[in-house]
Amino acid sequence: MAKLPTMFSLRHLLVLSVALNVSLILRMMYESEEGNSGCCLKRKGNSEGNVIHQSRLAISSSTSSLMNSTRADHPGGRDRMIKLDHGDPTMYEIFWREMGDKTTIIIPGWQFLSYFSDVSNICWFLEAEFAKEVVRLHKVVGNAVTEGRHIVVGTGSSQLILAALYALSSPEATEPISVVSAIPYYSCYPSMANYQKSGLYKWAGDAESFDKDGPYIELVTSPNNPDGYTRVAMVNRSQGLLIHDLAYYWPQYTPISSPSDHDLSLFTVSKSTGHAGMRIGWALVKDKEVAKKMTKFIELNTIGVSKDSQLRAAKVLKAVSDSCEQENSQDGESFFKFSYMLMTQRWKQLRAAVEAGGLFTLPQFSPSFCTFFGQEMEPQPAFAWLKCEGDIEDCESFLREHKILTRGGGHFGASLKYVRISMLDTDETFLQLIDRLSAIQRQE
Amino acid sequence: MAKLPTMFSLRHLLVLSVALNVSLILRMMYESEEGNSGCCLKRKGNSEGNVIHQSRLAISSSTSSLMNSTRADHPGGRDRMIKLDHGDPTMYEIFWREMGDKTTIIIPGWQFLSYFSDVSNICWFLEAEFAKEVVRLHKVVGNAVTEGRHIVVGTGSSQLILAALYALSSPEATEPISVVSAIPYYSCYPSMANYQKSGLYKWAGDAESFDKDGPYIELVTSPNNPDGYTRVAMVNRSQGLLIHDLAYYWPQYTPISSPSDHDLSLFTVSKSTGHAGMRIGWALVKDKEVAKKMTKFIELNTIGVSKDSQLRAAKVLKAVSDSCEQENSQDGESFFKFSYMLMTQRWKQLRAAVEAGGLFTLPQFSPSFCTFFGQEMEPQPAFAWLKCEGDIEDCESFLREHKILTRGGGHFGASLKYVRISMLDTDETFLQLIDRLSAIQRQE
Repeated sequence: MAKLPTMFSLRHLLVLSVALNVSLILRMMYESEEGNSGCCLKRKGNSEGNVIHQSRLAISSSTSSLMNSTRADHPGGRDRMIKLDHGDPTMYEIFWREMGDKTTIIIPGWQFLSYFSDVSNICWFLEAEFAKEVVRLHKVVGNAVTEGRHIVVGTGSSQLILAALYALSSPEATEPISVVSAIPYYSCYPSMANYQKSGLYKWAGDAESFDKDGPYIELVTSPNNPDGYTRVAMVNRSQGLLIHDLAYYWPQYTPISSPSDHDLSLFTVSKSTGHAGMRIGWALVKDKEVAKKMTKFIELNTIGVSKDSQLRAAKVLKAVSDSCEQENSQDGESFFKFSYMLMTQRWKQLRAAVEAGGLFTLPQFSPSFCTFFGQEMEPQPAFAWLKCEGDIEDCESFLREHKILTRGGGHFGASLKYVRISMLDTDETFLQLIDRLSAIQRQE
Repeated sequence: MAKLPTMFSLRHLLVLSVALNVSLILRMMYESEEGNSGCCLKRKGNSEGNVIHQSRLAISSSTSSLMNSTRADHPGGRDRMIKLDHGDPTMYEIFWREMGDKTTIIIPGWQFLSYFSDVSNICWFLEAEFAKEVVRLHKVVGNAVTEGRHIVVGTGSSQLILAALYALSSPEATEPISVVSAIPYYSCYPSMANYQKSGLYKWAGDAESFDKDGPYIELVTSPNNPDGYTRVAMVNRSQGLLIHDLAYYWPQYTPISSPSDHDLSLFTVSKSTGHAGMRIGWALVKDKEVAKKMTKFIELNTIGVSKDSQLRAAKVLKAVSDSCEQENSQDGESFFKFSYMLMTQRWKQLRAAVEAGGLFTLPQFSPSFCTFFGQEMEPQPAFAWLKCEGDIEDCESFLREHKILTRGGGHFGASLKYVRISMLDTDETFLQLIDRLSAIQRQE
């Protein structure tokens, strides 16, 4: 090897070496920051750390810290219409930000080109990793029996509702099978059942007043959207086919009483983890032929379900299960503890605002034992089913005048005195809701 | 600052510093490797480099290198059923592997929680980045006018076909609108139009023999699936509504004559870039009300389209456009040049195998000028529309006996003497097809 020139003393080498160290350390710090920035993807907001910090504070204190934040913090907020007519689950963003890279998905461009995931599976477009995490999560939470079930993945649970209607109806029937659900039912059921003018199935309204002979399909939503109550089938006849929509049967919304054990149950990441943008839902199906027909529906409808979102959903479900299993051994809290506490906080604030005046009322729930948390808890639904009391006949219009956009009772087959309000929006929007409901009651 | 103890000489410090440098460099190398490993995702195969190398050789030589690879390379291959009944576009994997990290997508767990992408857009679930790259790619390729068009994204173009049927039909009509397409038509059209027993639209068969009065919807597939010919509308009446399915109007399959300029055109990444697993398609729609109704359909069907896949598709389309624009300035080849050469190679091999005997024939195409490549070229479709000559009346059954699974002419409204064979499978499967067709002709 060539000898170093004499002008390089040990002192020179040390300075050089230290400089190299500094540059390497700086580069690592820079790259680490870059790695967290999500690459080419746009970022929402700029004050990540603050949001998390404020939210954690909000959860750990009682109601005060969120209440101290007022509209004055949000210039122009007074005139803004706050949109709570959809159940857009953006409030969970705080938790997923704090999880950092644990749920970051990386997919190289050459992967998942094929239509097929596993041709030996009835649901040939189901990714094995996603199916594995679905089974694991139900076991961790204890909210559904998965043994002896076929898993069918869907582009959200909406597609699975349609797939189930298709699978449970018969093309040979002389008339479309009746589809019913008890009032107040999920507002989209009627249009989902009718928009294709299908000869296979047809919306037939309220399950409680349904008295037509012959076969029917009953949609049982439990906890119910919009009112949050636990439900069982209303029509009690031998020819009934049941679809259990269990989108909200998760510990942050309702006590888990026992693993659900139905012929056909539907779940979705939109409401369980808050990843509505993924459009991923799943069905647990007992009957093999029904699972085959649902798969056929999805084949004809969309030739399968996004592999990218299935893989991302698998990673998110895994993180949720991990967070539950590791809660006691580490200092992090589980996803369900976080979301349960946030929902508790919000419901406390909402009830306080509503009870401060006489204009509105909310459903009352009895507490019951939750096997997941191992304690008694009250339901704290994803939607508030608010009733306008007194002379206000059209609650939706009344609240719209006060810049609160909600979904009126008519959409759910119920009285216009009711509205459904999303409880899953951002902290900012939720605070504005509380402020406005309080202000309305002070004014009137 | 505290003074260093005298036992630490400059020499000691230098050794310490060099050791720190080495550890930092090693750590950076390790982390860099980790970042490229694709995280939790499973990898297909182990000899990435070889596959690419072989494929490039295969393309750059004429037919010899692929032909020299025989079934002997694949033990057990002789008895395997080769499945070419679907158009699974796995042959493009080679190109995307070579692109490396350029099309790797990274999505943090907290992003894209919301249902909404842009509430000010008619298609409120359309990601702006994806829309931008769609417009850019059409401009780069010159295969579609995008000015004055609304983009509607769908879960594959299958969902968009259904959305278009819904949008172009009327719920007030006394009977379902007729849906037609010229024989041989895409085999899924009849079941897609009929599986819901919709009162809005109904399959009415061959467009050429369609003679019913009143409104109708014609599906114009160009180049056509299964036979690869360029098509225009067959029914020429004033009350016709047209859906142009342009899934294969890309330079690797057919000469680009001019930018398509229709009321409603459909495209998909499945066939353009080979990313069938993403389930992403798009519609270019002239009429605002039609775009609104298509969006409404997708809202009721799946409440939007996977954001993850839209973002990944945007990255892939960007890479394709970049590869076209940078072709002359860099040593890489464009995606379309790669795929064009691969298709040319495959069609040459297929025609050679078919022409070596008298059992089969293939469609013949006239060359025409391709504005993208700036030269004359022949169509080289994604499917081979093979005809069994002589006494073989059921070509699908005949080929199945020889372990080649194809889709028979009956599915396309055509004679059983025809089959559709995918030209988009892996090199290995394609080589087995060539081998078997050659062997059949030698035997008979």
